[in-house]
Amino acid sequence: MALIVQKFGGSSVANAERIKRVAQRVVDTKRKGHKLVVVVSALADTTDDLLALAAQITDCPSEREMDMLLATGEQVSISLLSMAIQKLGEKAISFTGPQVGIITDKTHTKARILDINTDRIDAALKSGHIVIVAGFQGKTVTEEITTLGRGGSDLTAVALAKALKAKHCEIFTDVDGIFTADPRIVSDARKLNQVSYDEILELASLGTQVMQSRSIEVGKKFDVPIYVRSSLNHSEGTLITKETQKMEDIMVSGVALNQNEAKITIFNVPDKPGVAAKIFKIIADHHINVDMIIQNKTETRTTDISFTVFKNELKRAMEAVWKAAKAVGAENVSCDENIAKVSIVGVGMKSHSGVASKMFGILAKNKINIDMISTSEIKISCVIEGNKGKKAAQVIHKEFGLGKNK
Amino acid sequence: MALIVQKFGGSSVANAERIKRVAQRVVDTKRKGHKLVVVVSALADTTDDLLALAAQITDCPSEREMDMLLATGEQVSISLLSMAIQKLGEKAISFTGPQVGIITDKTHTKARILDINTDRIDAALKSGHIVIVAGFQGKTVTEEITTLGRGGSDLTAVALAKALKAKHCEIFTDVDGIFTADPRIVSDARKLNQVSYDEILELASLGTQVMQSRSIEVGKKFDVPIYVRSSLNHSEGTLITKETQKMEDIMVSGVALNQNEAKITIFNVPDKPGVAAKIFKIIADHHINVDMIIQNKTETRTTDISFTVFKNELKRAMEAVWKAAKAVGAENVSCDENIAKVSIVGVGMKSHSGVASKMFGILAKNKINIDMISTSEIKISCVIEGNKGKKAAQVIHKEFGLGKNK
Repeated sequence: MALIVQKFGGSSVANAERIKRVAQRVVDTKRKGHKLVVVVSALADTTDDLLALAAQITDCPSEREMDMLLATGEQVSISLLSMAIQKLGEKAISFTGPQVGIITDKTHTKARILDINTDRIDAALKSGHIVIVAGFQGKTVTEEITTLGRGGSDLTAVALAKALKAKHCEIFTDVDGIFTADPRIVSDARKLNQVSYDEILELASLGTQVMQSRSIEVGKKFDVPIYVRSSLNHSEGTLITKETQKMEDIMVSGVALNQNEAKITIFNVPDKPGVAAKIFKIIADHHINVDMIIQNKTETRTTDISFTVFKNELKRAMEAVWKAAKAVGAENVSCDENIAKVSIVGVGMKSHSGVASKMFGILAKNKINIDMISTSEIKISCVIEGNKGKKAAQVIHKEFGLGKNK
Repeated sequence: MALIVQKFGGSSVANAERIKRVAQRVVDTKRKGHKLVVVVSALADTTDDLLALAAQITDCPSEREMDMLLATGEQVSISLLSMAIQKLGEKAISFTGPQVGIITDKTHTKARILDINTDRIDAALKSGHIVIVAGFQGKTVTEEITTLGRGGSDLTAVALAKALKAKHCEIFTDVDGIFTADPRIVSDARKLNQVSYDEILELASLGTQVMQSRSIEVGKKFDVPIYVRSSLNHSEGTLITKETQKMEDIMVSGVALNQNEAKITIFNVPDKPGVAAKIFKIIADHHINVDMIIQNKTETRTTDISFTVFKNELKRAMEAVWKAAKAVGAENVSCDENIAKVSIVGVGMKSHSGVASKMFGILAKNKINIDMISTSEIKISCVIEGNKGKKAAQVIHKEFGLGKNK
């Protein structure tokens, strides 16, 4: 009799009908002989409705009171799911995050879990209950209600799986799992059966958002197997786990395309130690997130520095960059919104040589020019012309043999 | 610098605009130099919306999960009110019932307050905060969330006023206070400046629902002065307090009319000891509330028993009464929905003689026949013909000189 943690997001519990469907699914799992802890998010739209109410009151609500407000969302869904399970004849009991001993630090609206006291859950499981826990929330040691920020319910589920020594954690979403590419861009994208924590972390950093990085980091740290599954069917989903030998046999696991970045170049930066540090310190002080950074030395005494930022931060970024350029005596600044970043990810790269040159070759054969390159141990990213992003993802996906019809 | 507990009901915090208005009123009181604890109910309609959601899931929800669900309503209003007060530049902090140490028994959906730990409120008041507390809710010693049942927010306010040794408790409603009669029935009904706990308890039992009896009983037990005031204006309201000499000088404080009861008569009940007990045991076992009971002995060996029940329980009551009648060998049962109960209440009755005969005289003079009579130390109730109820209340109000234009 294994202990499983299941997590259902807001769209899975959007209304009474869907809550009943989730209840049936939970009861089916229980009747297969498993012990179950179920984490739920707020009913879809609830959080938005609460935020809209708060916005009518004030434009800068205190974060403590915001947590007090938003934590009600999950409390509604746990009680309703518990009722729905009881209606199906199984014992169920719901707990809020504070009630169940999810202890966090004091950082309201994005608190970190410090500790989980599992006494109440253990006792409820022992007496045969399905335990329903409110995702996204906890309390400080001084009984203040906190929330965990974006993706907080996933984090609750993974952290509970670790604390309870669950067999695994199942994250239910509206997709079948994790794919070799975005099926909207690459039509024969294939669902992955297994993927490593590191690959998912790279994919998340590239904008493929199935789960927030924090939850995966916790899963990786404590070696919690995570299944990403669909709440709409009974497909197996994708298992996120530590690297296996089998994974290393596969060179590339997936292709990611990011069209939300823009490139900024600072020209003729004096080539002296500490100049780059000064530039990026000024940019960081303006809270601009910087992604790829490339430095090209073109003359003897000066250099050009390029990097990418999110398009929606471009205007603020350019203001900061001009300040930085003046501060270091650079001559000019330009930006380019017409770029795309295509990346391949795979733990197999560690043990296979020639992956990068193969990728560059595929792009060259298709007359796609490479503007910037950045690599990590298990990832290669190329910045290319914006309108060629989709084509690039498709040909890379095909040439690396990732599709259904290899 | 006095400590005051204010309580605002659901209609006072129905939307963002009203919450802002309440915030302004609270801040005004604070700026007069008072320490303030504010108790709020759920936003109007919230509780109904949550009940409707639960009804879509199951027709017999567990009471524990119901409390989990309903307690979210007040948590929303406390956070929003706290934000609105902060927006006006005052320090505010919200607490749920469980958070602030309102300890109750385990009777879900109608829990009784056992104890209040005021440490957190004391500390917050000391640091200059307006303290906002969720009404209607508490927790058991094992951290289960409970709710206090109908009128629970009033109870929270009065119990907090007692625990905090507040100067008084202010209950804000949509009426100006407590009146000598229902202004919809008696046009010159006058607002009372003061009324005793006992009088309000009698009025509440007669169906004049400004506050639930439980809150007034707590106020009486611990001598907490309670003001019933309007949230729409700055009128003084009505002070509910212990009896004073001045009150005893007034014979009658108010007239109440109840048109929600029906009369049931059981004919020819054998006149033996224990028969009445048997009848009302059977009725109580069917959870029927019985009000006035009159026994008229008409023959030597049998008697007639009449009593009143709520009209909306009449059908169920009649079924129970037929069973009871058969069980004791009574001959027949009848019911009459066309009745009204008119009552007068006043602590002055204790020291004034002739109040009852004056009331009967007024009714007789107006050709209103009396069907049943019931009295307590400070109350006289007469059951009369249903269509004469309004007239009866008007003439009694006039003849006892209760109106504005005496």
